[in-house]
Amino acid sequence: MSSNLINRRVTLSSRPKGIPQAEHFSVDEIPVPDLVDGEILIENDYWSVDPAMRGWVNDLPNYLPPVEVGATMRSLAVGKVVASRHPDYRADEIVMGMFGWQRFTVCKGEDVDRKVTETDLPPSLALGIMGLNGVTAYFGLLDICDPQPGETVVVSTAAGAVGSAVGQLAKIRGCKTVGITSSEEKMALCREKFGYDQVINYREENVADAIKTVCPDGVNCYFDNTSGPISDAVMSNLAIGARITICGTASIADWDPLPQGPRVHRQLLVARARMQGLIVFDYKDRYDEAYVALAGWIRDGKLAYNEQVLDGAEAAPDAIAMLYRGENSGKLLIKVD
Amino acid sequence: MSSNLINRRVTLSSRPKGIPQAEHFSVDEIPVPDLVDGEILIENDYWSVDPAMRGWVNDLPNYLPPVEVGATMRSLAVGKVVASRHPDYRADEIVMGMFGWQRFTVCKGEDVDRKVTETDLPPSLALGIMGLNGVTAYFGLLDICDPQPGETVVVSTAAGAVGSAVGQLAKIRGCKTVGITSSEEKMALCREKFGYDQVINYREENVADAIKTVCPDGVNCYFDNTSGPISDAVMSNLAIGARITICGTASIADWDPLPQGPRVHRQLLVARARMQGLIVFDYKDRYDEAYVALAGWIRDGKLAYNEQVLDGAEAAPDAIAMLYRGENSGKLLIKVD
Repeated sequence: MSSNLINRRVTLSSRPKGIPQAEHFSVDEIPVPDLVDGEILIENDYWSVDPAMRGWVNDLPNYLPPVEVGATMRSLAVGKVVASRHPDYRADEIVMGMFGWQRFTVCKGEDVDRKVTETDLPPSLALGIMGLNGVTAYFGLLDICDPQPGETVVVSTAAGAVGSAVGQLAKIRGCKTVGITSSEEKMALCREKFGYDQVINYREENVADAIKTVCPDGVNCYFDNTSGPISDAVMSNLAIGARITICGTASIADWDPLPQGPRVHRQLLVARARMQGLIVFDYKDRYDEAYVALAGWIRDGKLAYNEQVLDGAEAAPDAIAMLYRGENSGKLLIKVD
Repeated sequence: MSSNLINRRVTLSSRPKGIPQAEHFSVDEIPVPDLVDGEILIENDYWSVDPAMRGWVNDLPNYLPPVEVGATMRSLAVGKVVASRHPDYRADEIVMGMFGWQRFTVCKGEDVDRKVTETDLPPSLALGIMGLNGVTAYFGLLDICDPQPGETVVVSTAAGAVGSAVGQLAKIRGCKTVGITSSEEKMALCREKFGYDQVINYREENVADAIKTVCPDGVNCYFDNTSGPISDAVMSNLAIGARITICGTASIADWDPLPQGPRVHRQLLVARARMQGLIVFDYKDRYDEAYVALAGWIRDGKLAYNEQVLDGAEAAPDAIAMLYRGENSGKLLIKVD
């Protein structure tokens, strides 16, 4: 059945340095190949847009090889199985995985990250709060920082898809939460939708002074998505035994050569603090634990989320740059056209 | 009995910024007060000279309040109890503690860090390999880095009092050890006395290139005492899951304002690495575990050490600066005159 289908897709057309821009991508159409044994055909419903995609297209050491120029852009997507020659998959099942920015994905069963079984929740959540965003927040906060009741947890990109979940999980853990964000609108979202106790606008305030004021006993846990001046400001206010999760590097446009910043060594030493990088894929064996917990909190109304949906393939080339410009509100998705 | 004794001591005479120099100290003599109930009088045998003493005299946030100008210089020392009005101490017992750069120390029992009970080993070891140096190496390597057999462990200040013990403990754990040091003489010491598998001279070689050559699979554990360019070079060669202990900051002369260096965030992120500060005092409750293990390895000939002993109070004022000039070989001590 698949041989007559046309696959509309977004390819990487040139190699960016730093943040990929619209000019680095092209939209084209190619035929969908026939399935062979062991393969499934997925019709994607939503594509994901994630900060990590910047690292996937740069030719620098990373946890995955860079996307080749000319290839379909790597991305997570959620879609429906429309044909299967794999014993474990049937038509109409909802699946999530690294299916790429393309309408149709032919893949082996192993390429499926998971079957989406929470049929009471919208499928798009599988790319956000019920996907890597939620799982990243879950393990990055609860496993690496392991916040204790009464501790102070600071979150950068506090209104973002990961940060907003981190702040809410910290509240569920009984912590005081401080969110750092970039606009009045996002501050309101942080307070009203995500329940932060304190919110700092890094474009309007001196973050180091603001942290000192709202965290008089220092910062016990810091979940960082920026790796730049905001992080530096938090690092100057660590409590003894602080734990820092490095989840993303949104405020650094280019890592080659390594940018300079204040040395963290003495801050870590004096506070006996721990700074640790998180790649959520390392937790694959424990994803189910997170999905069960996250779905429970969503159903109980304890875990709110925010999605922004762009329309179709033409919106994709600029979407990663849009994330880094801070223009999105919540998890950025593309509805496949 | 103590009232006729004269206490020769070294005081902090002015507040240094950065590394304290000879000019920041004075030698004077004051009478020894009579003991009151609960106090003991100690005649010190050796004073310790430690890199951490720089932090104790700077007026910056630290884990201890700064030594006041005019006060006896804070230091560890080992000595003999000569009089006691404390039920737990008797004359002739050997004790180690924060007794200061002074001949006689009057203190409460609580000020004693420990009774030195390994009477088969020289008492000076209580300030080195059987003291905080050994304990720092023990917990900083075995607890924070937790190296596994076959892993590669890199040590900066590899010939130093802490570093040389770290390298040997890593060998005892079955690791490959790489030492970074500053001279041909220390390189030979590292190879012949401390058993490093590979040694790098940071004054002669490009450390990043040398690490890449001798650690083709990356660095699993890094025990750092420098926090400067040597650390930066190691950080560019981390293996997945690397653990970094920040024990000291020997190559940074001044932390106010914070010096700039390459940002570590992306290196930690890509390697899912962990960087953690160590203040050995946090392990007080577990010191005995370390002493038993260290004494056993010393007696078995598996743990060598190196001491350099300066002569008397006149040598003390320049001693900390001497450490930072890298002129000492092994644990620096002052024999009390």
